[in-house]
Amino acid sequence: MNNILVFQSDFGTIEGTVAQMYGVALTIDPTLKLYDITHNVPVFDTWSASHDLYQTIRFWPEETVFVSVVDPGVGSNRQSVVAKTTSGHYLVTPNNGTLTHVAKHIGIESLRVIDEQRFRRPGSENIHVFHGRDVYAYTGAYLASGKASYEEIGVLLPLNQVVTHRLIDPIFYAESLEGILEIDDPHFGMVWTNIPSTPLFDLGVQYGDSLNVEISHQDVIKYSHVIPIAKSFAYVSKGDDLVYVNEMGNLAIATNLENFTQKHGIGYGADWKVVINPKSKE
Amino acid sequence: MNNILVFQSDFGTIEGTVAQMYGVALTIDPTLKLYDITHNVPVFDTWSASHDLYQTIRFWPEETVFVSVVDPGVGSNRQSVVAKTTSGHYLVTPNNGTLTHVAKHIGIESLRVIDEQRFRRPGSENIHVFHGRDVYAYTGAYLASGKASYEEIGVLLPLNQVVTHRLIDPIFYAESLEGILEIDDPHFGMVWTNIPSTPLFDLGVQYGDSLNVEISHQDVIKYSHVIPIAKSFAYVSKGDDLVYVNEMGNLAIATNLENFTQKHGIGYGADWKVVINPKSKE
Amino acid sequence: MNNILVFQSDFGTIEGTVAQMYGVALTIDPTLKLYDITHNVPVFDTWSASHDLYQTIRFWPEETVFVSVVDPGVGSNRQSVVAKTTSGHYLVTPNNGTLTHVAKHIGIESLRVIDEQRFRRPGSENIHVFHGRDVYAYTGAYLASGKASYEEIGVLLPLNQVVTHRLIDPIFYAESLEGILEIDDPHFGMVWTNIPSTPLFDLGVQYGDSLNVEISHQDVIKYSHVIPIAKSFAYVSKGDDLVYVNEMGNLAIATNLENFTQKHGIGYGADWKVVINPKSKE
Repeated sequence: MNNILVFQSDFGTIEGTVAQMYGVALTIDPTLKLYDITHNVPVFDTWSASHDLYQTIRFWPEETVFVSVVDPGVGSNRQSVVAKTTSGHYLVTPNNGTLTHVAKHIGIESLRVIDEQRFRRPGSENIHVFHGRDVYAYTGAYLASGKASYEEIGVLLPLNQVVTHRLIDPIFYAESLEGILEIDDPHFGMVWTNIPSTPLFDLGVQYGDSLNVEISHQDVIKYSHVIPIAKSFAYVSKGDDLVYVNEMGNLAIATNLENFTQKHGIGYGADWKVVINPKSKE
Repeated sequence: MNNILVFQSDFGTIEGTVAQMYGVALTIDPTLKLYDITHNVPVFDTWSASHDLYQTIRFWPEETVFVSVVDPGVGSNRQSVVAKTTSGHYLVTPNNGTLTHVAKHIGIESLRVIDEQRFRRPGSENIHVFHGRDVYAYTGAYLASGKASYEEIGVLLPLNQVVTHRLIDPIFYAESLEGILEIDDPHFGMVWTNIPSTPLFDLGVQYGDSLNVEISHQDVIKYSHVIPIAKSFAYVSKGDDLVYVNEMGNLAIATNLENFTQKHGIGYGADWKVVINPKSKE
Repeated sequence: MNNILVFQSDFGTIEGTVAQMYGVALTIDPTLKLYDITHNVPVFDTWSASHDLYQTIRFWPEETVFVSVVDPGVGSNRQSVVAKTTSGHYLVTPNNGTLTHVAKHIGIESLRVIDEQRFRRPGSENIHVFHGRDVYAYTGAYLASGKASYEEIGVLLPLNQVVTHRLIDPIFYAESLEGILEIDDPHFGMVWTNIPSTPLFDLGVQYGDSLNVEISHQDVIKYSHVIPIAKSFAYVSKGDDLVYVNEMGNLAIATNLENFTQKHGIGYGADWKVVINPKSKE
């Protein structure tokens, strides 16, 4: 193992919750290297946590251990698991949907249920509200430091026992592409579709061409404009909308130097449909 | 010493203030391991800083040095001290109330006044507004790295010179428990009482039982409901309130999947009284 | 090199963007020590980024490498550079204004254009929207780890090619000092002028004296009061305004225990003028 432990949660960083997880991990092994994805996943939002893990883990060295705790069911009978991905990373998390995108797009090699008889902070038996510290950080520290092997964590769980959100595949028609708005960028206000860019370029589209973009929410049209596809934001004027290819190779929509989702009241999720097709050149 | 230095402040992280403290520490010893509790203590709120330290430091390895800077009196004649706790931790802080909960619940073994002739960043003599960087981070780095011993920091101060906020003890009546709302969770909206759970269970209460919970602010009743005590949030329905045992072993109040304090307009502090008693079973 | 890599951006920390940069850097060298100035520079605000770098880098050890990414022109033809400062620090950044204050107040020894044929994350050639990860973090990691020398980064650029914002010098009149409000403290609400304190003390002013302070925005007076100059905030009553000497040795304006800029509706920048003169003692 590479001694790297990375945290993700919806705990915020305005008091000591995260620092308690850090302290527990460093008490197990003070040589661990601790990092964060974010602790500002929208509260209880396992979909966002899942997408964020998928986006992020592949940039980290193999054997890196991720502790992901968005855990609205803490203390209930939801399982606590460690997933080993086909990319060689480990995810320590409640089995509550946070593995959705990694399972689909990266691949889970195997899955184990955490043996809480062994992997639980001593003295925490009567605390039922902070498994992030007492189970997940504790287990992650043992695994990342090599003080426990993956095999020791607990028994194997069949891969079909991974709890996942429903994912919707994009549809490629002869002259248009249909998908959903999969996630937003909550800071800059871009929104990402689940439509890969390759089929669009296969239709003969080139950077600079105009596209019809129609976004609807529960069948009500929320946005319908002809906008260009551009290499990056700065290729259009300030305040103009554009389609671009995001860092996953999918189509995304933004406003140059402004916030697209706020400006147009756009959300994301399975009921936000998007249809993109090249504007016919006459 | 274990080379670990942990920061807490009300400085925020939206510009370089914290990074300047980090740079000063790493200039003294680049092998130091630097971490944060939070830099988002409510501005000037030494009570919250104090409670947060109490919650957090005991999860860290012995000999860890904490630099806590919530310092509304910077540049005035308030003292700068290092406290050694009975748990083997060190706290570098203005003597302005931030040691309240640690002194009461963990214990301070001894206290020294920082000798600013020696422990102050060279060249900072005419800067009176950033002791977090020039005195506290500087002193903490010397202590955590072992480049200065605790004894060298300055002369001993009698323990009764620790500046503390007034703490209120809970009262156990024959059939009810009375205390205050000691602190909130500003992110999820739970609120923590200062009432330990043991006396409640001693009254025969079991998980699932109903409790009368009455919260008043300056003698005006703000909340009065019969709600269950549950092992964790998920044992009640979404939107339902519950009493639970928090990670300190005290009684706390929350709403499952919602924000209790926002929903009911509940604050915390010495003038927020709470009375809890088992609902009689008839 | 000292193996220290420090990040600054306007990316926020509410999802995995920053963690992707961290992962890329640690994949290049897992022994790197990664830190942050902030990731909450106001969006697209290269002026604030520039001032923040100037404030912060000099507190870090020599040879520290800073990756600064406030990059509204990502994917356009703006240059990507590494600056070596006369203080012995390295700045990896788009050449878009972020070097303004460092160039003026610290000094740039030399400047190189990043050779993106070599210093760009393999596989990122078709991604035009995240140079922070694919170019800047990648280059910074090579430089900080010593896996590439500064000379290898790319060809030298003449120093007059540094893109800078216009800076305005303060003016010292016989009995008054005139300058601009250069930057605010967005957390506590102080505001910093570009006027050094020495000329004021040269006029015979002492701590405790009264000053006329007049702030105007585009020639409209926004604030005009007689307030004291004090060593620190606590020397005036809660809610009172004061002039103080900030940590750069310049004059700054604050309200004790309150937020000056919010209270008086004060901004900052080249069109916020401030005139300070000692009140005549009669």
